[in-house]
Amino acid sequence: MSSEHKNRLAALRACLAATGLDGFIIPRADEYLGEYVPPCADRLAWITGFTGSAGLAIVLAGEAAVFSDGRYTLQLQQETDPDLWERRHIIEDKPEAWLRAHAEGKRIGYDPWLISPEGLKRFAGVELVPVQSNPIDEIWADRPAPPLAPAVPHPEEYAGESAAAKRARLAAKLREAGQNAAILTDPASLAWLFNIRGADLEFCPFALGYALLRDDASALIFMAPEKVTPALRAHLGPEVTVLDRAALPAEIAALKDKTVHLDPATQPVWFEAALREAGANIAAGPDPVALPRALKNPTEQAGARAAHLRDGVAMVKFLAWLSQAQGETELSAAAKLLQFRAQGELFKGESFAAISGAGEHGAIIHYRVTPESDRAIRPNEVYLIDSGGQYLDGTTDITRTIWTGPGEATPEIRANVTRVLAGHIALARAVFPAGVAGGHLDAFARAELWRAGLDYDHGTGHGVGSYLSVHEGPASISRAAKPVPLAAGMILSNEPGYYLPGAYGIRLENLVLVQPALFPKALKPFLRFETLTLVPFDRALIEPALLSPEALDWLNAYHAHVYEALAPQLDNPARAWLEAATAPI
Amino acid sequence: MSSEHKNRLAALRACLAATGLDGFIIPRADEYLGEYVPPCADRLAWITGFTGSAGLAIVLAGEAAVFSDGRYTLQLQQETDPDLWERRHIIEDKPEAWLRAHAEGKRIGYDPWLISPEGLKRFAGVELVPVQSNPIDEIWADRPAPPLAPAVPHPEEYAGESAAAKRARLAAKLREAGQNAAILTDPASLAWLFNIRGADLEFCPFALGYALLRDDASALIFMAPEKVTPALRAHLGPEVTVLDRAALPAEIAALKDKTVHLDPATQPVWFEAALREAGANIAAGPDPVALPRALKNPTEQAGARAAHLRDGVAMVKFLAWLSQAQGETELSAAAKLLQFRAQGELFKGESFAAISGAGEHGAIIHYRVTPESDRAIRPNEVYLIDSGGQYLDGTTDITRTIWTGPGEATPEIRANVTRVLAGHIALARAVFPAGVAGGHLDAFARAELWRAGLDYDHGTGHGVGSYLSVHEGPASISRAAKPVPLAAGMILSNEPGYYLPGAYGIRLENLVLVQPALFPKALKPFLRFETLTLVPFDRALIEPALLSPEALDWLNAYHAHVYEALAPQLDNPARAWLEAATAPI
Repeated sequence: MSSEHKNRLAALRACLAATGLDGFIIPRADEYLGEYVPPCADRLAWITGFTGSAGLAIVLAGEAAVFSDGRYTLQLQQETDPDLWERRHIIEDKPEAWLRAHAEGKRIGYDPWLISPEGLKRFAGVELVPVQSNPIDEIWADRPAPPLAPAVPHPEEYAGESAAAKRARLAAKLREAGQNAAILTDPASLAWLFNIRGADLEFCPFALGYALLRDDASALIFMAPEKVTPALRAHLGPEVTVLDRAALPAEIAALKDKTVHLDPATQPVWFEAALREAGANIAAGPDPVALPRALKNPTEQAGARAAHLRDGVAMVKFLAWLSQAQGETELSAAAKLLQFRAQGELFKGESFAAISGAGEHGAIIHYRVTPESDRAIRPNEVYLIDSGGQYLDGTTDITRTIWTGPGEATPEIRANVTRVLAGHIALARAVFPAGVAGGHLDAFARAELWRAGLDYDHGTGHGVGSYLSVHEGPASISRAAKPVPLAAGMILSNEPGYYLPGAYGIRLENLVLVQPALFPKALKPFLRFETLTLVPFDRALIEPALLSPEALDWLNAYHAHVYEALAPQLDNPARAWLEAATAPI
Repeated sequence: MSSEHKNRLAALRACLAATGLDGFIIPRADEYLGEYVPPCADRLAWITGFTGSAGLAIVLAGEAAVFSDGRYTLQLQQETDPDLWERRHIIEDKPEAWLRAHAEGKRIGYDPWLISPEGLKRFAGVELVPVQSNPIDEIWADRPAPPLAPAVPHPEEYAGESAAAKRARLAAKLREAGQNAAILTDPASLAWLFNIRGADLEFCPFALGYALLRDDASALIFMAPEKVTPALRAHLGPEVTVLDRAALPAEIAALKDKTVHLDPATQPVWFEAALREAGANIAAGPDPVALPRALKNPTEQAGARAAHLRDGVAMVKFLAWLSQAQGETELSAAAKLLQFRAQGELFKGESFAAISGAGEHGAIIHYRVTPESDRAIRPNEVYLIDSGGQYLDGTTDITRTIWTGPGEATPEIRANVTRVLAGHIALARAVFPAGVAGGHLDAFARAELWRAGLDYDHGTGHGVGSYLSVHEGPASISRAAKPVPLAAGMILSNEPGYYLPGAYGIRLENLVLVQPALFPKALKPFLRFETLTLVPFDRALIEPALLSPEALDWLNAYHAHVYEALAPQLDNPARAWLEAATAPI
C-alpha cells in the first residue's frame, strides 16, 4: 500500500506544480456535503489510505498532513504512512492552524464543489484558489463510476402530500421573503420536495442531484439523465424540468439580478461564487426545506408508527433468538437481525451500519464491526446493538443493551443501566412549551448520571427522516447544537448512554415523535413526546429500587403497550419471550 | 404636565433644526449603560414624561414615538401625551422599523455616550449622526447635578484579594492576548478591579467612572475629582492615576498603534469611534472583568454566607412579625422588613426596591409598590415579598410567598406553590459537569409546572455580585441568555415562579453558590449548588404529597439547617416562630 500511496502523492504534487498551486485541500466530502460519500468521491481515502468517515488532508510541496477526530485516532495511524503524512487530531490540532503555519505566501487550491462558504471561512488568512477541475480526478486512473441508480417516485400514500403542494407552499415562502428562487443541494431536500427516492448511497435512499425552486413553484432538477426514467418524468409533471448537471452553469448565469436563496452552511461554495459572478443577489439562510421536512405530516406519522411496529417485531424476534443463541459473534448477530428485518413488509435496507458491540466493544461509541474486529458474544457480558431500518413508510433507529447471562449482572452495571434508563424515561415523559429546543431538555436525560459523577460524550438525540436519512436536521437534543425549537411532527432519537472504556457500553434508544400536549387552560401551546419504538428494555439490567415511582409506572405502561402491540404479530417462542420480557416489574 | 412636555419637545425640535438634524434618538441610559441611571441622566423621562426603567424615544420634526416593554404598557399610556407621542411596544413594534419607515433620507442624531456599538447596529440602514453634546442637556434648564458621592476603599477583609493582585492577573491576560490595554466602563468592573465602592446610584454601591487598564498592570481612572478623597488615593497606590473625565479624549488619542480591548456590547460607542480616530487597533470582546468578578474567592464566599445569616435573621424576624401583624399594607410591610435588615451589622441598604405584592399585585412580576398602588395585606390571601440587602460582605436577594391565613389556602394554590417549590428544589439539588450553562439547567426548575401546563415568563436565575449589583453577568440560569458555563464561585439566584394575573403570584427565591461536586472516580470536574439563603418556605402553602421523597428530604434538611443556623441569633417570639416554621414535614 505504502508505495502506491507514495506514487499517488507524488503524482498529485506534480499535477499541482503544473497548475501553479503550492498546495491542495482534500476534505472527506462529495459535492453534496452529506454524511456519506460514494466510492467515486472518496478522494481522501484514495490519496491517504485513511477510510474513516470524517477527515481532511492538506498536501503541500514538502509536507502533507491528514486530520481526523478522536474516534479514528488508531485507524488513522494504521491506515496512513508516517513517512508521507503527519497524522493530526482535527479538534486539538486544527487544519487551519497547520495550514497557516506552513502556507505563508503560498497559493493553496481547493475544490469549490467540496466545501461550503462557512467551511471555507476557517481558512481565512490563507491565499485560497478554487480549481476548475479536481487534480485528484485527473490522476485517479481507476476511479469508480459515479452512482447511477434510478430515481423513483415516492408514492403520496407514504409522503402524505403531493410534490406540487410542497412546491407551492415553499414558493409562497419565497415570495413572502422577496426571493425569486432557492438553490437546493441536500439530496434529502430534493427527495422530500419532489417526492422522489433513489439508491445512490449506502443507507440513505437518495437520488443525488441539485435543484432550483422558483417563486412560481416551477423547478429545475439537475441530475444524471441515466437516472431519470419515464415514470419519474411523469411523476414530476410539467412544472419540473430535469436537466443534466452540465446545464447548471448556464442556468445559474441566467439568474442575473434575481434574489436567490442559498445556505452557506451546507451548500458547496461553487454556488455562491457562480451566483456572484452571474450578478444575482444572494439571500443567505438555512435550507428552506429543512424545517418543513422535519415536521412530519399525519401520513408520515402513521407511517412511522407502522414501520416501528414491523421493526419492533423484527427486534423482538432477534432478542428472543439471541436469548437462546450460542456461539454467535457481533457480525453474525447483526446479520441475523438484518434477516429478521428483511422479513418485514416495505423494508428497503438498514438505515446505517449496525453497531454490534459486545463487552469492551460496546464502549466504542461509533464502533463498526468488521471481520477483523469481530468477536464472540460471550456469556455474562453486556452486549449493545444499535441498528435501524429503512422502510418505505418510515426510518427506524433503536439501541438496546442486553445482559447475555445466564449469571447476574453486577450491581454496578445494573445501577448504571438504571441511571441511563431513568434519563431515557425522564426525557420520554417530558412536557414542555413551544419555543423550547432539544438542548434545553438534554439535561433531563443526564440528571441521574450526573448525580453519580457520570456522563456520556455525545448528544442525547438527533432528528430522523421519513424514509430519508436517519440523521436529519434542523432540530436535535444536544447542548452543542444551535437551539432549534421543537415542534409537533418532529421525530427525534432519545438515546442517553454510559461507556466504561475497556469494559462495556450502555445506550438505550427509542425514537420519539413530538406531539401537542393538550391542557384546557394553558395560556400557550405545550408539547410532549410520543414514543414510537416498540421493544422491551432488558429487565436483567434494571434495578427497580433506583427508579422513581413515576419512572417505574412509565416503564410498566410502556412494556404493556409493547406487548399489546406486538404480541398479535408474533408466534412462539418469540411471543412467550415477549410476555416474560414485558411482565410488570 | 402636558403643556410642559409639549414645550420641551418643541424646544428639542428647534435645537435639532438649528444643528441640521432631522431627528434624535433618546435611549433610557446614562454613559455607563447600566441598569440604573442617576436623575441627571433620565433624559427619557424629562422629554416624554415616561418614568419606567426601560425604554427609548425617537423625535423627528413631525412625529415622535416612545417605546417600552410589556411591563410598562399601562404606565406608558398614563405618563405620556398621545398628542405628542406614539406609544409603542418595543418588542412587537421595534424602534428600528419605525425609524426606517419614517427616516428615509433623513439625518438622525444620537448621543455616542448613551448607546453601544451593538445597540447602534439595530438601526443599520438609517443615516445616523453622533452629536458632540446632547441637545436635551442644552435645553434642560433645571437638570439635576451629577451624583458626586465619595468613592471609598473596599477593605481586603471583604474583597479577599488586593486590587494590585487583581490588576496583575488581568494585565497578564492582556499580555497573553497580545493586547496593550483594556477600556472598562461598567462601574461594577471598576469597583471590583480597584476594590472601591461608592454611592452614586440607588441600590448599587458604585462610584461612577471609567478606567483604562494597561498590560503592565498600571491603570488610569477617569472620575470626577470631587469624589476622590485622599484615603482613596492612598488605597489606589502609585500604579493607578486618577484623572478628571475631561482628560479622557487625550488619553484615548495617546493609544495610537496600541491594541486596545473594548466590549462592543456594553460600552458606549464613543470609545470605539475615539479609538478608531486615534489609530488604535481594536480588540473586541466581553469586558475582561466580568468573569473574574463572577468567580467569588473564598473570602467573598465566606462573606456571602455571613451576610445571608444576618439577612436570614432579619427575614425571620419579619415573617414572625408578619404572622401576627394586622392592618399592614404592602408599603408598611416593606418598611418593616427594611427596619429589621438595618438592625444587622454591615448593612448598607436595600439591593433593589422591594417587591411587596399582596393578592393580585403579586402577579405583576416587576411590581413596585408606590403610595398610589399601596393596598392592605388582607387575611386569606397570597403575599409575595422579593427583597434584598447590600452588606459590606455580600449582596442578598430573596423571595418568599406567604399565606396570610388564618384560613387554609385552596388546594389549587397549594398545588401551584408546591410545583414551584419542586422546581426550586430540583435546581437546588442539581449536580452537573463543568461546561454546562445555566440555560441547560433552566428546565429542571420548570418541569413540574410544565407537566401541569403552567410556566413563568422570566429567567430562573441571574448572577449576583459581592457587595455589588444584585444583577451581575456573565452567567445566568436562562434559556434566552448566551450560554456561559457555570463555574465554582459563581453566585446565582434560583427563583422559579407562577403568576395568575388578577389573582396571585408565587416566586420562591434563594441564592446559590456554585461549588465543586467531588466524585472520587469522575473523569471530569462536576459542580453542584450550595444554597446560601437561610429562610423557611411557608408550610401553609406546601402540599407534601406532591413532592418526591427526595424533594421532601431536601426541604426538611434545609429547614433543619435554617433552624440550626438562625436559632442562636433569635429571641422569642421569632425563635418559637422559626421552630414551628422549620419542623419536619
